[in-house]
Amino acid sequence: MSVEHHTLSNGFQIVTEQMPGLESASIGVWIKAGGRHELPHQNGIAHFLEHMAFKGTSSRSALQIAEAIEDVGGYINAYTSREVTAYYARVLKNDVPLAFTILADILRNSVLDKKEIETERGVILQEIGQSLDTPDDVIFDWLQETAYPDQPLGRTILGPSERVKNFSRGDLSSFIEEHYRPERMILAAAGGVDHEALVKMAEDHFGDLKAGGPSENFGLASFQGGDFRKAKSLEQAHMALAFESPSYRDKEIYAAQIFSIALGGGMSSRLFQEIREKRGLCYTIFAQTGAFSDTGMTTIYAGTSGEQLGDLALLTLDELKRAAGDLTVAEVDRSRAQMKAGLLMGLESASSRAERLARMVQIWGYVPTLEETVQKIDAVTVDDLRRYGEHIAIAAPSALALYGPVEKAPDWAELQQRRAA
Amino acid sequence: MSVEHHTLSNGFQIVTEQMPGLESASIGVWIKAGGRHELPHQNGIAHFLEHMAFKGTSSRSALQIAEAIEDVGGYINAYTSREVTAYYARVLKNDVPLAFTILADILRNSVLDKKEIETERGVILQEIGQSLDTPDDVIFDWLQETAYPDQPLGRTILGPSERVKNFSRGDLSSFIEEHYRPERMILAAAGGVDHEALVKMAEDHFGDLKAGGPSENFGLASFQGGDFRKAKSLEQAHMALAFESPSYRDKEIYAAQIFSIALGGGMSSRLFQEIREKRGLCYTIFAQTGAFSDTGMTTIYAGTSGEQLGDLALLTLDELKRAAGDLTVAEVDRSRAQMKAGLLMGLESASSRAERLARMVQIWGYVPTLEETVQKIDAVTVDDLRRYGEHIAIAAPSALALYGPVEKAPDWAELQQRRAA
Repeated sequence: MSVEHHTLSNGFQIVTEQMPGLESASIGVWIKAGGRHELPHQNGIAHFLEHMAFKGTSSRSALQIAEAIEDVGGYINAYTSREVTAYYARVLKNDVPLAFTILADILRNSVLDKKEIETERGVILQEIGQSLDTPDDVIFDWLQETAYPDQPLGRTILGPSERVKNFSRGDLSSFIEEHYRPERMILAAAGGVDHEALVKMAEDHFGDLKAGGPSENFGLASFQGGDFRKAKSLEQAHMALAFESPSYRDKEIYAAQIFSIALGGGMSSRLFQEIREKRGLCYTIFAQTGAFSDTGMTTIYAGTSGEQLGDLALLTLDELKRAAGDLTVAEVDRSRAQMKAGLLMGLESASSRAERLARMVQIWGYVPTLEETVQKIDAVTVDDLRRYGEHIAIAAPSALALYGPVEKAPDWAELQQRRAA
Repeated sequence: MSVEHHTLSNGFQIVTEQMPGLESASIGVWIKAGGRHELPHQNGIAHFLEHMAFKGTSSRSALQIAEAIEDVGGYINAYTSREVTAYYARVLKNDVPLAFTILADILRNSVLDKKEIETERGVILQEIGQSLDTPDDVIFDWLQETAYPDQPLGRTILGPSERVKNFSRGDLSSFIEEHYRPERMILAAAGGVDHEALVKMAEDHFGDLKAGGPSENFGLASFQGGDFRKAKSLEQAHMALAFESPSYRDKEIYAAQIFSIALGGGMSSRLFQEIREKRGLCYTIFAQTGAFSDTGMTTIYAGTSGEQLGDLALLTLDELKRAAGDLTVAEVDRSRAQMKAGLLMGLESASSRAERLARMVQIWGYVPTLEETVQKIDAVTVDDLRRYGEHIAIAAPSALALYGPVEKAPDWAELQQRRAA
């Protein structure tokens, strides 16, 4: 490992990792400005801005931005999550300086042209439509809203159509002014990259950014939970369940992640074996744990027929309780092995590695070695897992979202009763 | 590159590539037995068998198969396409022999237990339901059926529910007997792998398989085309268009692929710029060219509102014609660069590399060097692309599938007229 990390005087950070033998590189800027940094009337702004970055700068049109990166066979994209907006490119290693220049240009010199804003509004409305037409996508938005009602963390990333229809240029530029601050930005690059050169370029292109602005303008999240159902004529009834879980700096996070692997992380997991392999109730079923800065969610998803939805819901709760009670050492060892190998295999790709660099710096302020992470995974005991399992099986606040032919599903009280039984 | 290729006396092939520096490997068996090898009453059998492989062998239960690979942090999966069924695993390099052993076991010793067949039937019916609930997935099935009506290549991979409900153990085992023959199998592995060891293991586990059976029991495909519309209350109207294109051994294939990159392969492409960036009609729009052994399809997909569907369809045809007429050298160079860099970056992953090894051996009987492929890409001229563009814009048979609020779409005759204009 050859991780190097530098912070400019205004707080802008650069973290890189040279990967010998790679002919390509992944480079991006991660900005702590996501959906949860929006005020209610701003919902959808962070994502709208992510789109506008590609719509023209003071020196490049939208077409010229695309041409510059694709002329060298590269690829540029971005995503918005609840806590971060990320802009990144994949290029051959000699083109890293070019990719940096384009990323810096779209981040610093976006013109937010009024005509382009109107056009992009149409694009985003279609993106919202696409998400609404994809049941196993939109159900997670509803689950999130049910878990954190009336809170920034509970709102969707894309925002409601009514808001997207009304954002003005001023709305967009004030969000940039407030949140696109150097101390909230991390440049991460992995693959065939030169740390010193990137630090110099970062100094030249981001060194003049003024620090300041609110460090966090959102309150802490509070997992409330509850029950959400939406009937619709679909082939499948979709079910998503969430349980409050640790934030990403919490020392319980590894227990939560390993527990969710044992519960529903692979083919040998409890849910896969009992619900799919033994009973044939569904094709897709999984559990996973995701974390934010102050809270987290252990989530279970499955799709089945309207007739079988009741069985699916009740059996899933039974499996959760059973796992909490009798998880074996062999299962814990296996889940640990899956987590470690997954980490190692993921790091063979430049993109996953750049993503991890940014995430680790954002969470910890440095990049832990693989050994350090492996030690934490190995330190988790069967008792830790059972304790975590018992917590989510019985005590933790929970949320449920059902979508499709859901009329025959057990009501919330019955499910809570089954959980408590 | 250190590609090694060996053929056993019964025709079973082994192709490997050692990738220095990698701690992991990807290993799989590709079998020339896909959807198009099914007779009409067998539609869905190849995919059903893919599922049954994981449901137990003479020495391992479904749970034991999953545990064996996940105990070492590995991952095992499979897919069925129209021409191939593939079973593959991702493991750390020391676990390649274990992964091989499990792959060989599920391929040679599957018990096809009757009770497990019943259970798995339920799983597959849910998979069909999930596909039907995903508009931008299912529309490609309808496009394929419209392009190749009443032909093996036009049928879905999953098969219709009515057939899946009725397959018997005998139906499954006779398909194995007929198609799982050594001369139709390729073992491909990339990453931290040892060629000699794999050849020896292949000899031990597959060397006794008897060659024979029909080499091809399907007729040549004939792209017919036509118009398919299905009205449904959805947020978006989904449009998929297909044009007949070259088969994968045809020398025109590179012109077709590069043309589809220039037309709709990236952010700088004609469709993305005109339909999304300039007009804001859609979020997703792309073109791509896929190839089979005897035919191929250049496909365009986009989603928009019911109101805008007519504009989208007509403008897409206009852009296709315009590209055929005035594609520039700069655009061709850029599309070539995208294709080459994409190839290079893809090959940094063990999985993509194993996939390419199998595919190249299946198509060409050997693995072309990267240089050889790059030469073919470089040899394509602007004239080749315009000629191909003109062919699909005007003369080639075409197919259309529309799904969602499609009532206001132009009829087939009007679209054909616009194309001919």
